[in-house]
Amino acid sequence: MSSNQVYGAGIWHFATYVDRYATDGYGEPRSIIDAIDLAGKVRDLSVVDLNWPFFGGDFTNEQVGEALDRNGLSVVGITPEIYSRVFAKGSFTNPDPGVRRLAHEHITKAADVVRHFGADYVKLWPGQDGWDYPFQVDHGALWKASMDGVGQLASENPDLKFVIEYKPREPRVHMSYDSVSRTLLGIEKIGLPNVGILLDFGHALYGGESPADSAQLAIDYGRLFGMDVNDNMRSWDDDMVAGTVHPIELFEFFYTLRKNNWEGVWQLDQFPFREDCVQAADHAIDFLKTVERGLEKLDFKALQAAQDKHDAMGALAIAQKALYTSW
Amino acid sequence: MSSNQVYGAGIWHFATYVDRYATDGYGEPRSIIDAIDLAGKVRDLSVVDLNWPFFGGDFTNEQVGEALDRNGLSVVGITPEIYSRVFAKGSFTNPDPGVRRLAHEHITKAADVVRHFGADYVKLWPGQDGWDYPFQVDHGALWKASMDGVGQLASENPDLKFVIEYKPREPRVHMSYDSVSRTLLGIEKIGLPNVGILLDFGHALYGGESPADSAQLAIDYGRLFGMDVNDNMRSWDDDMVAGTVHPIELFEFFYTLRKNNWEGVWQLDQFPFREDCVQAADHAIDFLKTVERGLEKLDFKALQAAQDKHDAMGALAIAQKALYTSW
Amino acid sequence: MSSNQVYGAGIWHFATYVDRYATDGYGEPRSIIDAIDLAGKVRDLSVVDLNWPFFGGDFTNEQVGEALDRNGLSVVGITPEIYSRVFAKGSFTNPDPGVRRLAHEHITKAADVVRHFGADYVKLWPGQDGWDYPFQVDHGALWKASMDGVGQLASENPDLKFVIEYKPREPRVHMSYDSVSRTLLGIEKIGLPNVGILLDFGHALYGGESPADSAQLAIDYGRLFGMDVNDNMRSWDDDMVAGTVHPIELFEFFYTLRKNNWEGVWQLDQFPFREDCVQAADHAIDFLKTVERGLEKLDFKALQAAQDKHDAMGALAIAQKALYTSW
Amino acid sequence: MSSNQVYGAGIWHFATYVDRYATDGYGEPRSIIDAIDLAGKVRDLSVVDLNWPFFGGDFTNEQVGEALDRNGLSVVGITPEIYSRVFAKGSFTNPDPGVRRLAHEHITKAADVVRHFGADYVKLWPGQDGWDYPFQVDHGALWKASMDGVGQLASENPDLKFVIEYKPREPRVHMSYDSVSRTLLGIEKIGLPNVGILLDFGHALYGGESPADSAQLAIDYGRLFGMDVNDNMRSWDDDMVAGTVHPIELFEFFYTLRKNNWEGVWQLDQFPFREDCVQAADHAIDFLKTVERGLEKLDFKALQAAQDKHDAMGALAIAQKALYTSW
Repeated sequence: MSSNQVYGAGIWHFATYVDRYATDGYGEPRSIIDAIDLAGKVRDLSVVDLNWPFFGGDFTNEQVGEALDRNGLSVVGITPEIYSRVFAKGSFTNPDPGVRRLAHEHITKAADVVRHFGADYVKLWPGQDGWDYPFQVDHGALWKASMDGVGQLASENPDLKFVIEYKPREPRVHMSYDSVSRTLLGIEKIGLPNVGILLDFGHALYGGESPADSAQLAIDYGRLFGMDVNDNMRSWDDDMVAGTVHPIELFEFFYTLRKNNWEGVWQLDQFPFREDCVQAADHAIDFLKTVERGLEKLDFKALQAAQDKHDAMGALAIAQKALYTSW
Repeated sequence: MSSNQVYGAGIWHFATYVDRYATDGYGEPRSIIDAIDLAGKVRDLSVVDLNWPFFGGDFTNEQVGEALDRNGLSVVGITPEIYSRVFAKGSFTNPDPGVRRLAHEHITKAADVVRHFGADYVKLWPGQDGWDYPFQVDHGALWKASMDGVGQLASENPDLKFVIEYKPREPRVHMSYDSVSRTLLGIEKIGLPNVGILLDFGHALYGGESPADSAQLAIDYGRLFGMDVNDNMRSWDDDMVAGTVHPIELFEFFYTLRKNNWEGVWQLDQFPFREDCVQAADHAIDFLKTVERGLEKLDFKALQAAQDKHDAMGALAIAQKALYTSW
Repeated sequence: MSSNQVYGAGIWHFATYVDRYATDGYGEPRSIIDAIDLAGKVRDLSVVDLNWPFFGGDFTNEQVGEALDRNGLSVVGITPEIYSRVFAKGSFTNPDPGVRRLAHEHITKAADVVRHFGADYVKLWPGQDGWDYPFQVDHGALWKASMDGVGQLASENPDLKFVIEYKPREPRVHMSYDSVSRTLLGIEKIGLPNVGILLDFGHALYGGESPADSAQLAIDYGRLFGMDVNDNMRSWDDDMVAGTVHPIELFEFFYTLRKNNWEGVWQLDQFPFREDCVQAADHAIDFLKTVERGLEKLDFKALQAAQDKHDAMGALAIAQKALYTSW
Repeated sequence: MSSNQVYGAGIWHFATYVDRYATDGYGEPRSIIDAIDLAGKVRDLSVVDLNWPFFGGDFTNEQVGEALDRNGLSVVGITPEIYSRVFAKGSFTNPDPGVRRLAHEHITKAADVVRHFGADYVKLWPGQDGWDYPFQVDHGALWKASMDGVGQLASENPDLKFVIEYKPREPRVHMSYDSVSRTLLGIEKIGLPNVGILLDFGHALYGGESPADSAQLAIDYGRLFGMDVNDNMRSWDDDMVAGTVHPIELFEFFYTLRKNNWEGVWQLDQFPFREDCVQAADHAIDFLKTVERGLEKLDFKALQAAQDKHDAMGALAIAQKALYTSW
């Protein structure tokens, strides 16, 4: 079988990182152009999600476009940076209306970048929207502001899709879009057709969800607009290489997508702090191809029959065999 | 200030327990009559939630009623046992339609007990509904069955309220009604006015929610039909004595109820495995009275002003002072 | 390759269970004789660890021995039940000296059962020794009692090995022997050659340890006297079927044993609440045989070279390939 | 009662921070001189722990000394930065012997800074020493290197104390000095009198330890050389303001220190990402003074009597009353 699957990655996969300890970074800083050139070295990568503004220099859309072209890459989404210093106390939910306006303007500009590149969506990851301490916020008001900010953008830009990437926490101690269900509640309340979910496997996993169940739920609401994968230790968003720790649940996640005929990009959202970023992407995609082959081998009918009985051992035997004989 | 608050408890607070290790139990078995007589010894308890069928013997509603009367107790809710052996693989979601029917019949009978006692609601805690293993269930089908089961009951019994008590897990590795948001999604889909949430403070806490935020959300959907409190270590449903570990978040929870003029019973859902059950209830209620006094002292306006700025230190200073000077 | 590995299981794997909700149990009660007959049906099981007193009836050592013989099973260890009702507030650390004495006498009798069956060890799992609440215990005194109780037994029975099975928690909110390091600290302080660790893979995993690291540490102290495996969701001792959720870490665990030439029984400690117990054991052992084959294929030298560079991708590629081509 | 307690803080409390998202930082960068001047504004701060090299400029010991003098501050410890870029794959355990040597030289120079300021200790926080992935490292070799690195320093500098600050994880997925017990095992193996523990309340809490128990254990080994406090949500090192979330366990921690006549600095290790740093320190110290007053009121004898019976409700009633009437 030759793969027909399109693979993608967040371009930050090919950046270097800082954290609160290694403030001098885990490597020399890279520009988005450097990162795109590294992404081009990954064996099977076709699309990327780009942070915006473009990092590491003052680059035009055209310059970025050239870099993408020479690496055979196209753009699946744009991620406006609404989690930098000015947004430290929130973007949509910032207590300062001026900052909320700034977030709105910032994302509105990012929407034009989506149009420029013909990408699929504006990705909203409002990681600074939430709270840290008990009593810090008026929860009703905060949640309303979370929805209002997204709703305004979606209604002003009906030609574009907006995807919300939820996460339980980090950098805030609690993030307002914290789970698949909360996000769906918000999206239903917003009530617009162009708002959906970008489901991050690792965020679901460490939020105590079953990522397969989260995917099914988002699909059943018609809101699964995108996805990415990685791995972690279930207690933090480690953004490790996909498949290295939880292969079975990753397989179940893709099984759920396939069963529902969900056809979209299989993306990576990994942070290889101490690894070679190209090797880390290749490693992940190698495993995702095992998953692809496993899905081809998988006896969907027998699996469904086992699931209809809630027969864990029977279902697992079918799934394990398909995956483990597909290396 | 004299307390006007009505206090309640799940009658199981006054039972003895078994677990998978101490299979001979943490004390001599007690009947529900014994438990009611113990509940009567708690200084400020007015109402109880009763498991049904009544445990420890073959008691009529009348016998139970007599025991309640002599202890000055009334019934706030009935909890049908849909998590015993026959329901080990689920009640609403059991793969066997016969068992699903049994659950329905069982709860239908419990509804009559609610009517008999003039209680507020049928409490649904489908703790066996969910899954243990990856690949074990068809997530879409399972969730649909979770909603259908509740919906059928609510539509057949429009005179009664049904409250769903969600919990992340236990005894299943994952419970289908796992969070406030998932439960609200389900309730909105069911679309009936008589289905709501029984919010357990500890379930919210160990699910990584802020219980205050969960309460606000349920209230904003008009679905907060009941509540109970306890405490835990945030990683399991320890059902410890309320206020002993997380007093600040407990205070924020009640602050949220008060701010929204939510007026209902303050209930205990504690499992004092190794403690004297009367002492454990008194200990909790003593702290809840501190909370009551703290709410009287609390400067709601100043607190709101601090929250409007997301001023954590300012808000906490107001809240800590009100609580800690109210002992 | 035909397997030379000896497989074992705790006999409770073949019992039925109760918990605090399904107080009528997850199936008809079984006697230890029933359980042994079920264990005999597992394809590759040779040894068992027996709870003592024998459950489900008044059986003599001889009766149990007959059942073992007819099923081709021998005894690897005896687990005295020091976590039942009388020990609810602790065995070695009970505040009542009479109960501490009782625990001592109880385990002393169990030691004779070890001698009778020629088993390898007395297994100590003091699951009720610990605390639930802040301020509940004098931590120094509690820990001293934990060590004294084990030390006295080990010094009085120098012909036998005593193994401590640590666990972070359950049924206590915190267990005194909570981790591999704490247990080794205690064992070193006890200072006797016949006290060691029974390392449960799942307990290490859910305690946030790397089970491979825990095994190496116990081996380096000369204290790894036994082991068992299962799986869980990292946040509780779910005692699920081994290999179903965390196959890579399970493989690393056995790699560590093999690398150190640790040769002992590969045991199961699973609680198949809702599964057929024979099928659950077969399922686990099937995977353990994949692990065995994987270890035969594994390039230990190349793996060591990758580890010497802390080369995660390189090491994982070697390990994943060996495991996933061994189904 | 007027306070006799000496209060301290890590000087990083008064810096600004970056993380992997807000790469432009949570505020304008500050030099260590700026930070010292802010520390001087805290009402009751006497001592600080200084990162070394001094951040934000090229400052001499003398320049730093002047800043300390004008703010009435002295130095309790020096924290060499062994977690910056060059040490991304470890300091003591780096696979590159050249980097291990660099770490050694770096800390050796920091030791001279300790001597210059007459501080109490060199603080070792080897946050990059550990692993991320299964199979990544040889666990035996890694742990040996962890001990060897500390041992060499301690034997070369017998006039100084070295304190190890353990933490479960971050920035590595798993840190080699991960818990109080593991660290004590290492210290005992190193076998030198001048190696001890700096116990961080929050690290213990989020590692699933009871900080009071951890303190007692370290004291019983004669190794509690320092401590600091903060708060978190039990699942990450949030470094929140002390006392805001877990006041009871904080009180138990200080009760344990007092009971053992441990007399040292009460330090803060907080990261007020979004708060005013002076206000955050004042808020914490205000609560610590409540704790001080609570300890004066606490009936140690009655508490010990309750603990001797493991009487949780009795012990908590005594503790809660002492704390909550001391605001």
